[in-house]
Formats: sequence, C-alpha cells, structure tokens
Amino acid sequence: MAQERATKKQKTEGYVLHYWPVLPGRGEYVRLAFEYAGVPYTEQNDPSSLLSTITNPAKSSHPPAFAPPALKLPSGRFISQTPAILNHIAPKFGLIGVEDDADEEEKEESRSAVNQLVLTALDLCNETHDVHHPIATEKYYDEQKDAALLRSDSYRKNRLTKFLRHFQNVLATNPNSPDTEKTYLVGTKTTTADLVLFHLLCGITYAFPRRMATLEKSGDYEDVFKLKKRVENEKGIKEYLASGRRKAFDVNGVFRHYPELDDEE
Amino acid sequence: MAQERATKKQKTEGYVLHYWPVLPGRGEYVRLAFEYAGVPYTEQNDPSSLLSTITNPAKSSHPPAFAPPALKLPSGRFISQTPAILNHIAPKFGLIGVEDDADEEEKEESRSAVNQLVLTALDLCNETHDVHHPIATEKYYDEQKDAALLRSDSYRKNRLTKFLRHFQNVLATNPNSPDTEKTYLVGTKTTTADLVLFHLLCGITYAFPRRMATLEKSGDYEDVFKLKKRVENEKGIKEYLASGRRKAFDVNGVFRHYPELDDEE
Repeated sequence: MAQERATKKQKTEGYVLHYWPVLPGRGEYVRLAFEYAGVPYTEQNDPSSLLSTITNPAKSSHPPAFAPPALKLPSGRFISQTPAILNHIAPKFGLIGVEDDADEEEKEESRSAVNQLVLTALDLCNETHDVHHPIATEKYYDEQKDAALLRSDSYRKNRLTKFLRHFQNVLATNPNSPDTEKTYLVGTKTTTADLVLFHLLCGITYAFPRRMATLEKSGDYEDVFKLKKRVENEKGIKEYLASGRRKAFDVNGVFRHYPELDDEE
Repeated sequence: MAQERATKKQKTEGYVLHYWPVLPGRGEYVRLAFEYAGVPYTEQNDPSSLLSTITNPAKSSHPPAFAPPALKLPSGRFISQTPAILNHIAPKFGLIGVEDDADEEEKEESRSAVNQLVLTALDLCNETHDVHHPIATEKYYDEQKDAALLRSDSYRKNRLTKFLRHFQNVLATNPNSPDTEKTYLVGTKTTTADLVLFHLLCGITYAFPRRMATLEKSGDYEDVFKLKKRVENEKGIKEYLASGRRKAFDVNGVFRHYPELDDEE
C-alpha cells in the first residue's frame, strides 16, 4: 500500500500543497482551509517538476493526479481534486459545521452537507472560468472571444444569479446559524463551504466588478455579501490577507477580468 | 438539527433517490452504486414536485439542493451533488477499495482516492455535456450549434484522449489490482470510481460512437475498455442491465448523439 512507502522523514514533513506558482487558482481554496484552521503547511510550486511529480505514481502515490492542486498528506500519500482535498481535511480541521462531541453519523452527514455546498460553489467557479474559455481550454481567449461574449451574457443574467440565489437561500434558512446575520452555510461553525464561497466571491468580483456591484446593490443576496465580509475578518484569514502572502488575481488565472465580458446596462 | 426531524416512519423508509424520470442522467451514477452493492432504494421521479421538494429546506432538509440528484438518507436528511452522494454512501456500501479490517486512516485515504477519481470522471461527464451546450444551458442545441461544432473538435482530439490517458495510467499502475487485466482503479475491490467510469464510458460511446470505436481500436486505452466489460458483467450490474429497468440514453440527456459532433477522419 502507498501508506507503507511513507518513511519517518515523510511523516514529519506535514502537509505539502503542490500547485502552480504566482496564481491563487484552485490552490487558494485549499490554502484558506489551512490558514483559517491554523494548520502548518508548505508548498511545492516549481512549474518544471509539478506535473511530472503529481501525475506519476512512482513520484507521488497511487492514484496519480489528473491536474493540480494535489496535497501531500503527512502519511506520504497524495490526494488531488480540490473538493476531495477539502473533504479529506475538513473533519480533521474542525470545518464540518458541527461540534466535536456530535455523534459519528451526525458528523458524517454534516460533512457531506458541507461537501455538497463546496461542490456547488466549485461548479460556479468552473462556469466562471468557462465564460472566457467556452470552446477549448488549450486555445487562447482571443481565439474564442465571440463565443465568450455570448456565454458571458448567459452567465451574468442567468447562471450567476441562479447560483447566488441558491447560496442566499442556504444562508437564510440555516436553522443553526450562530449569528443573527445568517452568514454560515452549514451548522454552527465556519466550514470549508464558507471559505470556498468567500474566495469564489472574491474571484467573481475581480472578474465581473460591474455585475457584482449591481447584484450587491439589489439587496437580493444580502447574506451572501455579508458572508464575504464576515470571512475576511475571521481569525486566521484576516492575518493571511494582511500578510502579503495571498497571491493576486491576474489575467492568466481561473478568474479573469475582461471588461467586454462584464457589460452591464 | 435535521436529524431530530426524522421520524420512525422516515427511518424505515430507507434510501430514496430524487431524480428526473425517463433519463439515466446523473442519477444513474447513484443507481449503479445501489445496484452493485445490493442495497434497496426507491425513487421519487415526479417532475412536478421534484425541484420544489429538494430545493426547499422545509420539504427536504438543510442545506437544500441546487439541482437533482438528491438522495434522502434513512435519517430523513437529504444529500445532493452526485460526488457528495457517492462519497457519503461509498464507505457504508464497501465501495472504497479496501478491506473492512483496514485501519480507519487507511480507509479515509482510500475513500478520498476514490472520491478524487469520481470527481475526475464527472469532470469529463461535464465536459461531454458542454460539447452540445457550450454557450448557455438554458438555450437549445440548435441555438449554439456553431460553437458546439468547434468545441466538439477540441473535445474529441484533446480533452477526451487526455482523460482516457489518465484513467489508463491509473488502471495500469494500480499496485493492488486484484486482476492481471488491471481493471480496478483503486485498491483491491470495485469502487464507486469504477462504476462511475463504466457509466461514463457507456454515455460517451452512445454520444460519440465513431470516435470511441477509433480510440478502442488504437489499443492505447486497453485497460479502460476492459474495465467497461468487467463492470457490465459484475454481480448486481449484470442483473440490473438485463432487468429492463435501466433507462436508455436519448437526445434530452447529459449524453446526446448528434452525428455532426462525432466527425471522424
């Protein structure tokens, strides 16, 4: 088994996030869980060895990754796919929305509820990416700009609002939210779902500032925007944002600001 | 908590899959896990009440679903998002690739490895869907046919082969595969990842029969196609396929056969 390959040295290495340098990208969803939970981690960001390490089971573990991010666990085993990484660490880091003394089945169900919302938020992340790459990920934006303009129209008017309505509904109806402002997606505590939605809102606001300003002003997604403000002031996150370590969005990432795609009447 | 709302009656109801009627769709990935494991389940397929039930926390549970499928658990709680459902039931159904006497951390890591591969397979499922809907899910195929033709070219030549190469690599390098033919993705047993890849291959073969015939003939993805044959003969799956209960692919589903998108030199 892969676990048997883990040496003592590997076991003391702790968590290592393998991801591209420079960009926040999908690795940022994983970083935020570590930063919020205060769990130490290091990164491997060498672009010349990243793919050859994580996609080769002899250099990482079985099964190999399809794409970054991949997280090397203290056991030496690698896990990839952002939602699989988050679902793996969420219960260990206390990010599943229930208290530690909850029974095992309640923990499992709350963990799955968090996973459900992480997946829905990451679906919106993918759709936000696909606005600028609707035809082929391997081609440049300029080669698919006409299709991108068409897709941005559907995204801004239909998809984005549909997802935000959903998250507003989830927040407003959480029967166990610990605050009167209703800024917790699941249960009584900050979860990976809150952290993922926070970063997603940051990314969409970077890419579509005019559209997001309109949606914030509408008041229809009040708790969603309050969650963003709440999370950025949470212990761990506040210090991370102030540290200068958080990578900036730019035109090569998942979230890209092309003003022509953010047309707003 | 949602669990407290579960009545005795609900507890005896067992698992109920809420999904659209007629189509296999994403519900099929969940059905296959039940069919293979031999766990009883029923379905709610009334299209007039489906969305109003699963998206309303008062009629289902918190957090509500964004979209079907949703699985009502014996506790009365609903879980949605296909990979979240599968990850929830996989350890209960013995579908995480390790033996029952493995230690808890080994089980968790194998469960996450299975989850990782389920997510990658479902990414390919989404990309396969997006070939016929590259611009807007709310519009008809005919309204986005030009973009679909462009996207199908990238899909057939780049994306599909990239994913199949990955799964071939995963299968061929599984150090614990119980068969010499290497048709198990993770560990020593059939997992939800095997079942999801099986249905995905069925769907892609329905939608792109010419492209898939070429890829099978190439011999480059030998173990992938052997997995498909192995799973269709597994106990539980064989009987299900012969039962007539399995819904047929058709032109309204995730997988659609438009011959013009399956152009092959």
